[in-house]
Amino acid sequence: MDDGRVSASCIFCEIASGRMPAPTVFESEGLLAFLDHRPLFPGHCLLIPRQHYATLPDLPARVTGPLFRIAGLLCSAVEEALEAQGTFVAINNRISQSVPHLHVHIVPRREKDGLKGFFWPRKKYQSTDEIESIRGKIGRAIQRLNSPLGT
Amino acid sequence: MDDGRVSASCIFCEIASGRMPAPTVFESEGLLAFLDHRPLFPGHCLLIPRQHYATLPDLPARVTGPLFRIAGLLCSAVEEALEAQGTFVAINNRISQSVPHLHVHIVPRREKDGLKGFFWPRKKYQSTDEIESIRGKIGRAIQRLNSPLGT
Repeated sequence: MDDGRVSASCIFCEIASGRMPAPTVFESEGLLAFLDHRPLFPGHCLLIPRQHYATLPDLPARVTGPLFRIAGLLCSAVEEALEAQGTFVAINNRISQSVPHLHVHIVPRREKDGLKGFFWPRKKYQSTDEIESIRGKIGRAIQRLNSPLGT
Repeated sequence: MDDGRVSASCIFCEIASGRMPAPTVFESEGLLAFLDHRPLFPGHCLLIPRQHYATLPDLPARVTGPLFRIAGLLCSAVEEALEAQGTFVAINNRISQSVPHLHVHIVPRREKDGLKGFFWPRKKYQSTDEIESIRGKIGRAIQRLNSPLGT
């Protein structure tokens, strides 16, 4: 379910409701953050809305602002607490998403921590035509999706 | 500069102001999204606030909601336009951040696209004591940073 109700079989709904324990670092009425049990680096946190939404596009507008303001706070806190020099913030929507309940990864980063090649391999577009074609496809999809009338 | 003014030497400020061309897919008064010139996969977009903020914690609250609502829209649009099955959304704060102007990566994802191991290596905590120690450090940092009086 992607509609904000509790999903009975969802492990993050279990954690959000308190039925399953987790090492919590932050909680508010609508949000919860806890340590990932298999961190990329110690201090790797997961921030979730308590209500069940599967992906970022499923999140209602009223939750988006608070969720990412707290994500920013967590970046500062994780950096300070772990004496890190930066953070990595990531969301997997569906692919590579181990639990289908939206979760924001917040990971402490340091120089030479071994993740330098995180975004590789990257490859230039083959031509300006390819760029223009893809630009047009995304632009049209945005116009369609962003239209108040859905037209 | 992290204070929202234009940074003269920042390539993303140049793009945001229109002085430097970029393959734009979305623009509004405060936000701009364009194709990354060296994509992880074709359709990889970067979403930026037009004003110059370096990292997620630097972003003012009034910008956070609109930025991530549009990030969600871009996820749907990129997925639809590229016939992808999901998306990867990421922010590098300082470490691995090639341009020090906050940018949200939005990358189309497909099953078996080669990024399956993206979050590896991951490693369990060695003990519950280690978990509790790190949980406490982050929790105290949040309390300090989140206090209205800064105490």
